Amino acid sequence: MKTAILSVGTEILFGQIVNTNTVYLSQQLNMLGFDVMYHYTVGDNTTRLKEMIDYIFHDCDLIITTGGLGPTQDDLTKETVCEALNDKLVENADAMDNLKAHFQHSVMTENNLKQAYLPSRATMFRNDTGTAPGFALEDNGKMVICMPGPPKEMTKMFENHVRPFLEKMQDSVIFYKTVRTIGYEESRMETELLDLIDSQTDPTLATYAKDTGCTVRVASKRKTAEEAETAVNEMVEKVLDRIGEYVYSTEDEDIEQVIAKKLLEKGLTISAAESCTAGLFSSTLANVPGISAAFNRGIATYSNEAKIDELGVKPETLEKYGAVSAETALEMAKGLAEKTGSDICLSVTGIAGPDGGTPQKPVGLIYVAANYSDKAAGKNGSGRSETVIEYRRNTANRDWNRRFSTLRMMELANKILDGKLE
Amino acid sequence: MKTAILSVGTEILFGQIVNTNTVYLSQQLNMLGFDVMYHYTVGDNTTRLKEMIDYIFHDCDLIITTGGLGPTQDDLTKETVCEALNDKLVENADAMDNLKAHFQHSVMTENNLKQAYLPSRATMFRNDTGTAPGFALEDNGKMVICMPGPPKEMTKMFENHVRPFLEKMQDSVIFYKTVRTIGYEESRMETELLDLIDSQTDPTLATYAKDTGCTVRVASKRKTAEEAETAVNEMVEKVLDRIGEYVYSTEDEDIEQVIAKKLLEKGLTISAAESCTAGLFSSTLANVPGISAAFNRGIATYSNEAKIDELGVKPETLEKYGAVSAETALEMAKGLAEKTGSDICLSVTGIAGPDGGTPQKPVGLIYVAANYSDKAAGKNGSGRSETVIEYRRNTANRDWNRRFSTLRMMELANKILDGKLE
Repeated sequence: MKTAILSVGTEILFGQIVNTNTVYLSQQLNMLGFDVMYHYTVGDNTTRLKEMIDYIFHDCDLIITTGGLGPTQDDLTKETVCEALNDKLVENADAMDNLKAHFQHSVMTENNLKQAYLPSRATMFRNDTGTAPGFALEDNGKMVICMPGPPKEMTKMFENHVRPFLEKMQDSVIFYKTVRTIGYEESRMETELLDLIDSQTDPTLATYAKDTGCTVRVASKRKTAEEAETAVNEMVEKVLDRIGEYVYSTEDEDIEQVIAKKLLEKGLTISAAESCTAGLFSSTLANVPGISAAFNRGIATYSNEAKIDELGVKPETLEKYGAVSAETALEMAKGLAEKTGSDICLSVTGIAGPDGGTPQKPVGLIYVAANYSDKAAGKNGSGRSETVIEYRRNTANRDWNRRFSTLRMMELANKILDGKLE
Repeated sequence: MKTAILSVGTEILFGQIVNTNTVYLSQQLNMLGFDVMYHYTVGDNTTRLKEMIDYIFHDCDLIITTGGLGPTQDDLTKETVCEALNDKLVENADAMDNLKAHFQHSVMTENNLKQAYLPSRATMFRNDTGTAPGFALEDNGKMVICMPGPPKEMTKMFENHVRPFLEKMQDSVIFYKTVRTIGYEESRMETELLDLIDSQTDPTLATYAKDTGCTVRVASKRKTAEEAETAVNEMVEKVLDRIGEYVYSTEDEDIEQVIAKKLLEKGLTISAAESCTAGLFSSTLANVPGISAAFNRGIATYSNEAKIDELGVKPETLEKYGAVSAETALEMAKGLAEKTGSDICLSVTGIAGPDGGTPQKPVGLIYVAANYSDKAAGKNGSGRSETVIEYRRNTANRDWNRRFSTLRMMELANKILDGKLE
């Protein structure tokens, strides 16, 4: 069913709040098999709201609104929906009972009574966490479902009352998986998957570029959840055949979650020595709850002095090759390994910018190194290996270069753990 | 000017991303004096996009779009806007130059070339952080401005090119300052400033609650920039009289920028030992270019072993008081001071959650400590002082607790530097 989400509230148009309701409802409605075709936001204004409802119905059969159901003067959604769907407000006995129950221990100001009025043909949805009830109203095959704006009230009402109501309206289910990659450009990915994208009507494939890497969403809409899941899994296998080498998750996980899971499962430890990122890798890895069992320590060695003191980098190395060099990166990782004994010791040194570059060593020059145990790479033995990778980035954006470096460290750790590093 | 924001992207309709672009643009456009009347979102579909543009123009004169400018097949905004505004795409020499420069060190797939085509009458906006340029196109007094979807590219393009373009369209000038505070609740702030907020039509005051603390925006719209600036500065003085004690910037700077500036000006050094934040303070401070002159090192001591090895925390202290205790926090800061000699040595230890709490030491218990030189506090002498603060947070949200801890470390450093700590 073609569906639109309509948010009502001038504060949204001012950019004063982030519209998380729409994100939540989009996810929920898509999962229930409703086709969310549009999002709309309009201020607290009857004329524009009425006009918008009329317009949306030219292409959609269902509108889900949030906001404008409260007790104050600028709450106008209910009145306007009534007008658009040819109904009138009447006192609703259930709504009045709930309202009185809500205020049994406190004083109810007069304006609250407004909330006991609903369209005469409405199906009421109780508000279990607030005072304004929601409702569904139908007219001539077009339906509006109205819910309150505060996210807590809305999500509770959706879970408890609106979802069961919508489920009864549907005869298909959507299942999808999100495949995440790292080190891969969207344009290259699309080229690789183009025939699959073009030829498929179900499952459908869509690629997205994100900060942290490109993703492919594989979605199927079928009669049953099992059918949809099977179709999606088969297509994900095809995707993995093509671009599997860049994939780190088919479950929409962040790469730090994937790494953390592998470290914890295998009983491995990790430490990091960071120059240009100054702790960004460590703090990102520590996003994952329970990581303390694997994450030994992180050292942000910004100064040369710190690199020598903390990691035993040789002053000669710094002098001969510079702080930003493959040699320094390797010594940082090695020093960290000697100090901590962690299975995977990562290091990074680079020129994040915007200044500090030279013709020989421009801004965006980054070295990522690892010193890791055989065990980390899934091999027998008690030896250690080391590796270093040079990146030359064509940007002086400090923030990007630091995030890029962090991601490359994640990528390297993941490759080591997958035994993909020679 | 009546304005609509139109987001293009099926991923938004699936609820896969939070539409932060619209929040940002709403704030910016309102500040520039444009009346944002509607938000719209439509998928990657030419017919529906064209229909929507036509519809929006019945009530608005300006549409700002984000998304759908990239290299892949489903990027259709440019073509559709061309159709709606009676123009055609032609190769744009500037856009082609930028594209080639972007790919000078890597391989460009064929589909990227699409991004060098723009409407023939378009004013191009360069993309300083990506490949897809933006543009403005006018027809019969109606204008569309198209920007890319990735928030980093969009915000940079807006700041560098679109805002100046929009400013020229307005016949009055807006000047504003953003006063930033830390450690202050929005409701308290509003109460303190209420008469100023209510009585003023110009300059206007608006308060916003942000993750990093509350802000007050003071804005004036006048005929000339000078008039507006004078009015704003006078009002900012009034605001400082009321709440100055919580203010760390009247120039909309991040607190790490403020701290970095003070450290560099005074020739002071700083180091940090982080347990629960695991490098988040260090990496946040390192956002600031040039900080390497002041930032000596950061040590993420997640494990007890690391706290002992790196910072000389006594095993007895850990055993008697626990890793999360005032005593451990103080020893961490002291150990760091002995190791590095930095003027300000900060430490943090806490239970970030979601698990790991006990009745005595619940999730959300955090200790922030500092060991700092007289010089750092602006005093004569060669001694050092120390301090520790306990926080009890009523949330098990790991991410929030770690960000909160980082901010408290920033706040403490700033107080030390301002000589506000006894």
